[in-house]
Amino acid sequence: MHEPVKHMEWVGDAVSGHLRLLDQTQLPSQTEWLDCRDVQSVWQAIRRLSVRGAPAIGIAAAYGCVLGAQQRDARAGFLAAADHLATSRPTAVNLFRAIERLRKSAAPIRDENLRDHLLSEALAIHEEDRAACRAIGEHGLKLLRELTGDRLHLLTHCNAGALATGGIGTATAPMYRAAELGLPITILADETRPLLQGSRLTAWELSQAGIDVSIITDSTAATAMAQKRITAVITGADRIAANGDAANKIGTYGVAVLARHHGIPFVIAAPTSTIDLDCPSGADIPIEHRAAEEITEGFGRRTAPGDARVFSPAFDVTPAELITAIVTERGVIRPVNQAGIAAQFG
Amino acid sequence: MHEPVKHMEWVGDAVSGHLRLLDQTQLPSQTEWLDCRDVQSVWQAIRRLSVRGAPAIGIAAAYGCVLGAQQRDARAGFLAAADHLATSRPTAVNLFRAIERLRKSAAPIRDENLRDHLLSEALAIHEEDRAACRAIGEHGLKLLRELTGDRLHLLTHCNAGALATGGIGTATAPMYRAAELGLPITILADETRPLLQGSRLTAWELSQAGIDVSIITDSTAATAMAQKRITAVITGADRIAANGDAANKIGTYGVAVLARHHGIPFVIAAPTSTIDLDCPSGADIPIEHRAAEEITEGFGRRTAPGDARVFSPAFDVTPAELITAIVTERGVIRPVNQAGIAAQFG
Repeated sequence: MHEPVKHMEWVGDAVSGHLRLLDQTQLPSQTEWLDCRDVQSVWQAIRRLSVRGAPAIGIAAAYGCVLGAQQRDARAGFLAAADHLATSRPTAVNLFRAIERLRKSAAPIRDENLRDHLLSEALAIHEEDRAACRAIGEHGLKLLRELTGDRLHLLTHCNAGALATGGIGTATAPMYRAAELGLPITILADETRPLLQGSRLTAWELSQAGIDVSIITDSTAATAMAQKRITAVITGADRIAANGDAANKIGTYGVAVLARHHGIPFVIAAPTSTIDLDCPSGADIPIEHRAAEEITEGFGRRTAPGDARVFSPAFDVTPAELITAIVTERGVIRPVNQAGIAAQFG
Repeated sequence: MHEPVKHMEWVGDAVSGHLRLLDQTQLPSQTEWLDCRDVQSVWQAIRRLSVRGAPAIGIAAAYGCVLGAQQRDARAGFLAAADHLATSRPTAVNLFRAIERLRKSAAPIRDENLRDHLLSEALAIHEEDRAACRAIGEHGLKLLRELTGDRLHLLTHCNAGALATGGIGTATAPMYRAAELGLPITILADETRPLLQGSRLTAWELSQAGIDVSIITDSTAATAMAQKRITAVITGADRIAANGDAANKIGTYGVAVLARHHGIPFVIAAPTSTIDLDCPSGADIPIEHRAAEEITEGFGRRTAPGDARVFSPAFDVTPAELITAIVTERGVIRPVNQAGIAAQFG
């Protein structure tokens, strides 16, 4: 009860076990599990977005390396797997970090111990992410209780949930923790066009855990705020600059502006690995643009003229001054500015 | 060139002519025409939303009355048509106004002149709406040129276009007029979830007329404003209260808040018939709530969990203080407040 779905799990031992994954591309209409018994099936699961979310991808890749080491020549299999899995998604930094960590730690390990070592390292990566999510949940819930006076009516955007991590998510972590403690809490989930991660994933995982969630179209957030249905906003982030500007799924910036207009706190929850001290400000974060088809025929049906032009950035940047606080596994950064960020790394 | 599609037209004379309608339910993937040769087919076209938008519905109903009078007993046929067509859509006030106007004006007309009279009255209703749209276009363009310093990069929400009226629309009227004059103009159209009138209808009709239009998801508006891609916002309204508060398609209020944050003028274009002096403020405007299915399976495909709850008001209310100006066929109301509205009716 109030536990998120376990969407990723290693089943069995290092020699003959395998990775079990929930196929997120089938949600919410079907709950299908993928049993990945070789490197290529993990590679495809990442590529096809069956597993998505930067932390979750890193963990899946680590388990994929264990599968590589199940070949006759464990080390050659592992190293080939590491090279191959690094090509599955080009932008997720956690993927490279996880693979690099396995490579380094495996170097001094004797061949006969390699499989067990890799599995225990993959499990450790998974466990550390789980612990980071729990810590974000503790810090985040404490902050949100304070900011809302225990009236926990939260809006979230996109999916920074259990499905994107190895644990209880980042933006969702305080929600799971509140439910665990029996605190009354209601969630509004922006559906998050174009890819609908809010309705497909966030609403799904929260309702699975018995948490009170309702879906709104992205353009209903303002009215929900005016009607006092929202006491705080909490979202994840894809990248946070050294000055506190935060890039996240398109629509986050608009929600932050609306929150400011209505006097509602706007909080970002993200692991410290999301903070990029080499990136001075939001203006330096490169923003990917998405294909027009996601908007013009996003549901397998044409909903715009054939020659329609589209402006479709995948992310936007919320300036630090609109962010009430950033919650990481280490604690709360407030106010959000260069000094606050530096202090948490000091 | 730069003329909107003629989506509604009477073809032939009063005795044997008929009403030709573009079937808007098939847009944008198909351009299908409906030839309505009896009252029932007009009734169904209104009911099925083949023709929609309050002014357009009123005009279609008036032509439907002409079809009723084509029966052997012209007067009995007309009166039966009037009664029946009034049941097609319960909320569109223009429908009742058009039918009532025909009933009153037809009363003193001799039977042998009834058909011609009804057709000329229906054509007059259509023509008056066309003229109102043109006047809104003139006043609106003058205002927008002034507000933007001739940098016409407009955002609109939903469809207050030619397809909703008998002319060049209300919010779109200044766009068609600018294009006609050869002024450079670019339009961003919010796709307008849940029913996508922005991408399905506004983007379609503007691109048909050769006007530069791009579609954005509703949650991209804030970023487009931050990137200075928008110099003014213009939308229609479903109902305007005596104090200037305006109800319009859900999402309009959020756009108005974002415009204020970015220092961008927010303009409403609507005929005076939209202003309801009996309604003191926005709080008195009843807001319809829509079915969950429009959000959870809006495109024939399930995009949310089966038991998902949804909060889905069809309209929101933008308070007068966020509205830079209201443009009607009579001119510009600015500032928007009780006195300004009363003055235009004075």
